[in-house]
Amino acid sequence: MIQIAILGFGVVGSGTAEVLTENCKLIAERCGDEVCVKYILDLREFPDHPLGDRVVHDINIILNDPEVVLVAEMMGGAHPAYDFTCAALRAGKHVVTSNKEVVATFGVELLELARQNSVSYFFEASVGGGIPIIRPMQTDLASNKILSVSGILNGTTNFILTKMKDEGAEFADALKEAQKNGYAEANPAADVEGLDAARKIVILAALAYGILLDPNKISTEGITKITSLHTAVAEKLGGAVKLIGHTELIDGKVFAHVSPYLVPAQNPISHVDGVFNGILVDANMLGRALFYGAGAGKLPTASAVVADIIDILSNRASDRMSPAWETADAASVADAADYVCRRAVVINGCSGCAEKLQHALGADGYVCVKDGTYAVVSRPLTADAAANAVAAVGLQAVLTLPVLD
Amino acid sequence: MIQIAILGFGVVGSGTAEVLTENCKLIAERCGDEVCVKYILDLREFPDHPLGDRVVHDINIILNDPEVVLVAEMMGGAHPAYDFTCAALRAGKHVVTSNKEVVATFGVELLELARQNSVSYFFEASVGGGIPIIRPMQTDLASNKILSVSGILNGTTNFILTKMKDEGAEFADALKEAQKNGYAEANPAADVEGLDAARKIVILAALAYGILLDPNKISTEGITKITSLHTAVAEKLGGAVKLIGHTELIDGKVFAHVSPYLVPAQNPISHVDGVFNGILVDANMLGRALFYGAGAGKLPTASAVVADIIDILSNRASDRMSPAWETADAASVADAADYVCRRAVVINGCSGCAEKLQHALGADGYVCVKDGTYAVVSRPLTADAAANAVAAVGLQAVLTLPVLD
Repeated sequence: MIQIAILGFGVVGSGTAEVLTENCKLIAERCGDEVCVKYILDLREFPDHPLGDRVVHDINIILNDPEVVLVAEMMGGAHPAYDFTCAALRAGKHVVTSNKEVVATFGVELLELARQNSVSYFFEASVGGGIPIIRPMQTDLASNKILSVSGILNGTTNFILTKMKDEGAEFADALKEAQKNGYAEANPAADVEGLDAARKIVILAALAYGILLDPNKISTEGITKITSLHTAVAEKLGGAVKLIGHTELIDGKVFAHVSPYLVPAQNPISHVDGVFNGILVDANMLGRALFYGAGAGKLPTASAVVADIIDILSNRASDRMSPAWETADAASVADAADYVCRRAVVINGCSGCAEKLQHALGADGYVCVKDGTYAVVSRPLTADAAANAVAAVGLQAVLTLPVLD
Repeated sequence: MIQIAILGFGVVGSGTAEVLTENCKLIAERCGDEVCVKYILDLREFPDHPLGDRVVHDINIILNDPEVVLVAEMMGGAHPAYDFTCAALRAGKHVVTSNKEVVATFGVELLELARQNSVSYFFEASVGGGIPIIRPMQTDLASNKILSVSGILNGTTNFILTKMKDEGAEFADALKEAQKNGYAEANPAADVEGLDAARKIVILAALAYGILLDPNKISTEGITKITSLHTAVAEKLGGAVKLIGHTELIDGKVFAHVSPYLVPAQNPISHVDGVFNGILVDANMLGRALFYGAGAGKLPTASAVVADIIDILSNRASDRMSPAWETADAASVADAADYVCRRAVVINGCSGCAEKLQHALGADGYVCVKDGTYAVVSRPLTADAAANAVAAVGLQAVLTLPVLD
């Protein structure tokens, strides 16, 4: 019997208990022994839950119990999750988490703390929910240099953008529907303004490049300004508007941002719709691989938490999952102004203006979005270069979107 | 310095040497030491290759050299690849391979032999080329029961089917184009008749259910009979015709087959086009996850071979990759006749006949493919039940395709 503790008995925490119960037999086989939830730390009581008798309110009961070898932290939020994680690692207990805020904010320190205490700190569930991405990037892609990672990392915003595309809905109405369906919270700011995706892309950037950026400092634009015009432009140019977290190296420095992109139809990410997530990794030997699935939800996310638990308890765990990350500094962070990509530029005007725009941006052609509105896809340019080229021919963009090729 | 040997210096073998050279610095970091190709076993000489001086023609030179800790087998074909693999494992050397024929045919015995000799036998490259699928199924999905695996496992046939869909080409012409582009061999039988996909789906079935089926005994239908009518039906019903390797449990017994399927547009696999592969895993907690990427090719496949090499040499390898498979027997293999799925049935006749067909198959409606040709998607049925229902109303199907929901 292997004893573990669950911190936080919300959606993912209770889901983790459910996975451990539902698949207990195969999990026992794979761990070599039965896995038992000895404690559940929560402020609340759960008298009606079969594990209700495991609930405790004092972290020290868990920290001081030598039988507990692993702690699964699913409290959410920075504090006290971070503090309890530190304490558990110092107490020589492995920690697995789905808490992207803690990993993205304190990952460098926590991974170091895990190494110092010869335990593991695993976080497969922190990005892409149940989608295998953290471990594959560290094992299957270990033979590759990572050229870039681009992901639809937030199901709420992808649900909203899909509604806008399929039903011509405006943002506000699509958001209401997402809330009605339980896909968006009453306060959807962290999702629709891109912070959730920002936390996830800095974790992926750290896996790819070893530098952990500050999720609050990377350029982050959400979807609150997306209108039916964006949708119409995407339809005319062929593709879809998606909220993308993207990271790559620029002159050896790490660049990461979150922004709405125009994703052409030939890019497999353009077909990732609804609440699903998709993460596209471009590697120097493998080329492009897409990881697609349920990016959130009780059981999918819990499935990833329990995968980490099995990896550790089966004694297969290794320092593989404890990379040595460095904190970003001026020398390691790229300037967002240096990011080069193709850009879809939309203007109001005549076809003559569209032709001027086409030549200014070195584009192959232009499309008419609707009467008096034209769109052009530029050659690869920085944001400034694109803006200057448009201004130079006396035009003004009503809308500009980076293109994910 | 860690010494390894490469068996077979063809496309994947030379690609593996290229990956080891190209990314040697990061590979050395991840293995903790430099990885050196001491020998290359091939019948040919490669005087102009930088590693030409490593070429040997006698396997015993490799088997008898205690410095060689790992052998990468990329010879292709059953023999002597199988015999050399046995000898290497018996000599206490780890073996990694891209050879799906050997894994699918001798996997049970070779994994047992690896265990007996306390070495690893890894085969990430044997399915899906460079796409991470073997290791994710054994780690990230370890917390799940696998409900089914459905994959586009052969790039050649997917290239041909994509051509037929996009350009209305007939099979013979699309095949010629695939051969012209180097995507199909002069003798394309193993690809277009489904044997390559059969070998891969039995490997995936063994990972999911622990039973290794005989790839030559599972129901295998290729794409040689696919015509523009199939393409037209798929277009009218919404979706695409794909060659799918599928496995699931039927009453606790393992079912696997290879067949052309109608894949509705809402299934993410329907968007996997060209030479790319896509593998959809349905797991009881995670739900559906899709793994997409380059299913073949020199560097992508070599990238997976080297990932296995790193996993072993970094001492992170474990028995995770050496599952105990059992050989299939009558008690463990499902009867293909018991496989239930929705089926697209096409008849020639009048709209009255289409209505009769609709009711016979419990369908929601019917579509007119072209004058005098109608298609209906049945409720979930066995192949026999569908055929009998069609015959019972005096109709004859000109075409029937299973549907991948």
